[in-house]
Amino acid sequence: MRLKSLFVVVEFLFLGRATAIWPAPGTISSGTRTILLSPSFRITSDLNPTPQDLSRAIKRTQTHLRSDSLGRLVIGRGAGDSATFASAPVLRALLLSLSSGSEVRSISDEAVQPLDVRDESYSLSVPDDGSDAVLSANTTLGLLRGLITFEQLWYEFDGNVYTISTPVKVEDAPAYAYRGLGLDTSRNFYPVSDIKRTLDAMSWVKLNTLYWHVVDSQSFPLEVDAFPELAQEGAYSATQVYSEADVQDIIAYAAARGIDVVLELDTPGHETAIGLSHPEHIACYLSTPWADFANEPPAGQLRLATPATLNFSVELVSAVSSKFRSSLFSTGGDEVNTNCYAQDAQTQADLQASGMTLDEALDQFLHATHAVVRAQGKTPIVKEGGYAVNRRRRNADVAIDMILKHNTTLPNTTIAVVWISSQDAKNVTERGYRVIHQPSDYFYLDCGGGGWLGEDVTGNSWCDPFKTWQRIYSFNPLANLTTAQSALVLGGQIPLWSEQSGPENMDSIVWPRAASAAEVFWSGGVSNGAALNASDALPRLHDIRFRMVQRGVKAIPLQPEWCALRPGACDLTS
Amino acid sequence: MRLKSLFVVVEFLFLGRATAIWPAPGTISSGTRTILLSPSFRITSDLNPTPQDLSRAIKRTQTHLRSDSLGRLVIGRGAGDSATFASAPVLRALLLSLSSGSEVRSISDEAVQPLDVRDESYSLSVPDDGSDAVLSANTTLGLLRGLITFEQLWYEFDGNVYTISTPVKVEDAPAYAYRGLGLDTSRNFYPVSDIKRTLDAMSWVKLNTLYWHVVDSQSFPLEVDAFPELAQEGAYSATQVYSEADVQDIIAYAAARGIDVVLELDTPGHETAIGLSHPEHIACYLSTPWADFANEPPAGQLRLATPATLNFSVELVSAVSSKFRSSLFSTGGDEVNTNCYAQDAQTQADLQASGMTLDEALDQFLHATHAVVRAQGKTPIVKEGGYAVNRRRRNADVAIDMILKHNTTLPNTTIAVVWISSQDAKNVTERGYRVIHQPSDYFYLDCGGGGWLGEDVTGNSWCDPFKTWQRIYSFNPLANLTTAQSALVLGGQIPLWSEQSGPENMDSIVWPRAASAAEVFWSGGVSNGAALNASDALPRLHDIRFRMVQRGVKAIPLQPEWCALRPGACDLTS
Repeated sequence: MRLKSLFVVVEFLFLGRATAIWPAPGTISSGTRTILLSPSFRITSDLNPTPQDLSRAIKRTQTHLRSDSLGRLVIGRGAGDSATFASAPVLRALLLSLSSGSEVRSISDEAVQPLDVRDESYSLSVPDDGSDAVLSANTTLGLLRGLITFEQLWYEFDGNVYTISTPVKVEDAPAYAYRGLGLDTSRNFYPVSDIKRTLDAMSWVKLNTLYWHVVDSQSFPLEVDAFPELAQEGAYSATQVYSEADVQDIIAYAAARGIDVVLELDTPGHETAIGLSHPEHIACYLSTPWADFANEPPAGQLRLATPATLNFSVELVSAVSSKFRSSLFSTGGDEVNTNCYAQDAQTQADLQASGMTLDEALDQFLHATHAVVRAQGKTPIVKEGGYAVNRRRRNADVAIDMILKHNTTLPNTTIAVVWISSQDAKNVTERGYRVIHQPSDYFYLDCGGGGWLGEDVTGNSWCDPFKTWQRIYSFNPLANLTTAQSALVLGGQIPLWSEQSGPENMDSIVWPRAASAAEVFWSGGVSNGAALNASDALPRLHDIRFRMVQRGVKAIPLQPEWCALRPGACDLTS
Repeated sequence: MRLKSLFVVVEFLFLGRATAIWPAPGTISSGTRTILLSPSFRITSDLNPTPQDLSRAIKRTQTHLRSDSLGRLVIGRGAGDSATFASAPVLRALLLSLSSGSEVRSISDEAVQPLDVRDESYSLSVPDDGSDAVLSANTTLGLLRGLITFEQLWYEFDGNVYTISTPVKVEDAPAYAYRGLGLDTSRNFYPVSDIKRTLDAMSWVKLNTLYWHVVDSQSFPLEVDAFPELAQEGAYSATQVYSEADVQDIIAYAAARGIDVVLELDTPGHETAIGLSHPEHIACYLSTPWADFANEPPAGQLRLATPATLNFSVELVSAVSSKFRSSLFSTGGDEVNTNCYAQDAQTQADLQASGMTLDEALDQFLHATHAVVRAQGKTPIVKEGGYAVNRRRRNADVAIDMILKHNTTLPNTTIAVVWISSQDAKNVTERGYRVIHQPSDYFYLDCGGGGWLGEDVTGNSWCDPFKTWQRIYSFNPLANLTTAQSALVLGGQIPLWSEQSGPENMDSIVWPRAASAAEVFWSGGVSNGAALNASDALPRLHDIRFRMVQRGVKAIPLQPEWCALRPGACDLTS
């Protein structure tokens, strides 16, 4: 028994070094044999026909196999491996196939399936004798995930593309169906090319959702054909707009990479920019001091109690939601400021006329906007709230959010994004809502960069400290939840709020930290036995980070290169 | 009197908006008249001959005037200015001249002059009637600084390049002679192109020193022709080396932009990488646990008490120092670990043979390495220390630094870099040393990014929190100093330590924060009356940040663009 235990440990350590797949697969076994990739290596599919987006994914994999040129992260960068090349078998092909009976659909169609039927599982086998590797799945989406895994097996030394860990067998599927990256394109604008590069990198770590917080109080960069004035007046400039064609381009680009684009139209707060074209719909528009009316400048919220504004809001949600393929659509709902409505004569008059309280008017607003989402066959998402809404110093008692603070009557088919604190997931699931984790205390990429308000000379960020990749990695999606509550966890997402970000630092603020979240939700997080351990993960995270850099995504170094080449040597206790 | 007071205030506010020169000039007056830049605008020099590097600087300015294409940071981005274009005078020329009797030397020669004779002052006048603008100075270096100022006056709208603030008169000179950016190229490597881009950006904010911490314990990327094995064995790879030609290229590129390159060869600690080619010179080479022997991995220090190592060190300092044009050269000296020497049998034997204490041996080492620096006509720089050297948890009692902790006998002609704490400047100047401020509690760009040691799952950075631009801006170079001590302050520098940085995040971690330090030391810092105020500075800092982005330097946004276009609207109390 003793010997066997030792053997298992040694094998485990070896596995940690030999394959560096990120996120870690459900099960993997690997050996110690080197094989080389043939110069004429082919990837073939027995699908009839092979969907165009799968053919293109195969081409991207072929490109990565040749252009990654990643030296293995060891001293000598693979020089020590080269002695095995002469006798190494040569891999000539990877064969892709769907499980028998599976219907052939495009990756893009599979990527936007409802969460409960989306299938990303796959099996991959790379023999150690040069015989063909095999990748199979129930869906083209699963095949895409397997291609991404296959790419990560290979290194380059002296012109040879090789792997040292055959035979490799992987059986893989995500622990959570929803694994997202949030992007705020309102506070500062990101060109389409930056979003596409981010979608590429997301696909490399099997993130499957872009949660697009496209507009906010600062700017309205989304062209909506039914309301062209919104972007014409509300965007920072004519060149800082996502046209209808851009949006379709982004949706298609994402879907082909297995990524669903979920739009958040954050209402009734976070919409001041609508006031540039429709001031009649905005309460406390640009009121000062802004801190009495909003969590950040400028102040302004949709006049939720005003019939014309309710109609406008419903039409806007309908118009925007209809453009997206996703089965999900978010109406936001965070940080609604009650003082704004209390001070707004129009809102007060409308409340009096209808005989409703503000809470009732908010409920009506929620039900009305969600009704059009549901009418399109989609599931609405809202932001959770909490009794401790305290993002900025002065608004603890005047901000309300959906679900927790606002005593909503939303049905349990609604999905809640839990953002204020990781502690809130318990309350939200207790009420029977499904949750997407987006806790500011673990996942907010913008935290720790200092305050950005003028005159706030000594200000730090409201959600200090900086969320390190280790902190993100330590998140437990099922913490404090019962089994029944755990079943309501759909997954999570890591958001980039852009008050102090733009295209300039997009890569460096997102990567590789977002990869940390990707592994939490693909592999299951710390709750899944002892599966996730930051020390074991570090060499693999270096690997995917170096691979991202090779592919043009400017992920930041995690350590001195000296440490990256010597796993464990820079551990605290080494 | 009342009216006059009001007038002064209005004028001050207007000035704050109308010109956005960074760093703020010593004195500036400006008006409210628009002038346009002629399509045939010329910059001429009456120097005979005009040095080639000045001609090239003129060409760069001409390029910036045309390619910045910066819309003014107001709502409409200058649309409101366009009504003034039709009647605006047109500027046809800027005339450059040296003060009568000034000797004509190249910018490059002026940039490497000793600090006490370097002259960066200039006068600039841009009339409001279209008559020629005039830039004069005592040196070509001053003319360069004036060109940089001139560039920042101009905006673009609808194809027109214009300024709205003529007549402009500037009389300018730096408050401090030494204004640096520190760069560590050992923990992670930066290609020459990244360094050049950084030198460009430095020149735009009138920083005048690149303090190049070129090698450290992790890698030795510097080619030294007398010791080619150092980089051959000590660099991360053959492509991660600064060749002798690269070094000359960097020095020349910097000098032409008014920047002196000061090399730091950090001895006797921070030199483990020498052990890859010369293990005989390194005590406690790769000893573990590393934390007993060094502040970060890997352990290893020059055997300062060993005669052969002392000779080697002197020859290395001599060989490296001789390649640099600067009148300054740093031998570092921080974080020397006494336990490393206590545990090293060779060092103990050599101490016994010579009858010296470790302190005496260190003093001998310092004097010997400094002697060759002085023999080359240069002034040596060392790192200060302090009794509270506590960068990593476990080494408070075993680390010594120069000057404060080590009772050095170094002469007062030595310059000290004060880094551990801003509090230490008083002690160092009390001992009569001239100081360069580099306080970790204000200026360390790497702070706040989280811990990078493996297994340090909850670790934050040792110098938390993140140093915001406001924090940097609040630094008082003369805090707690007497008048006599104040006279010993040469200036300061803002360093980038690269444990978690590389080319990927170089721009975003440095800019615009380093511009904050640039203004502190050009304009004098908070001690200079009430001159520096972060709220007044913010619109100007936005301006130079946007200009950097237009020129390809990925400086991060400081606020939502909404705020950048509305000075004051995002103030804490607006």
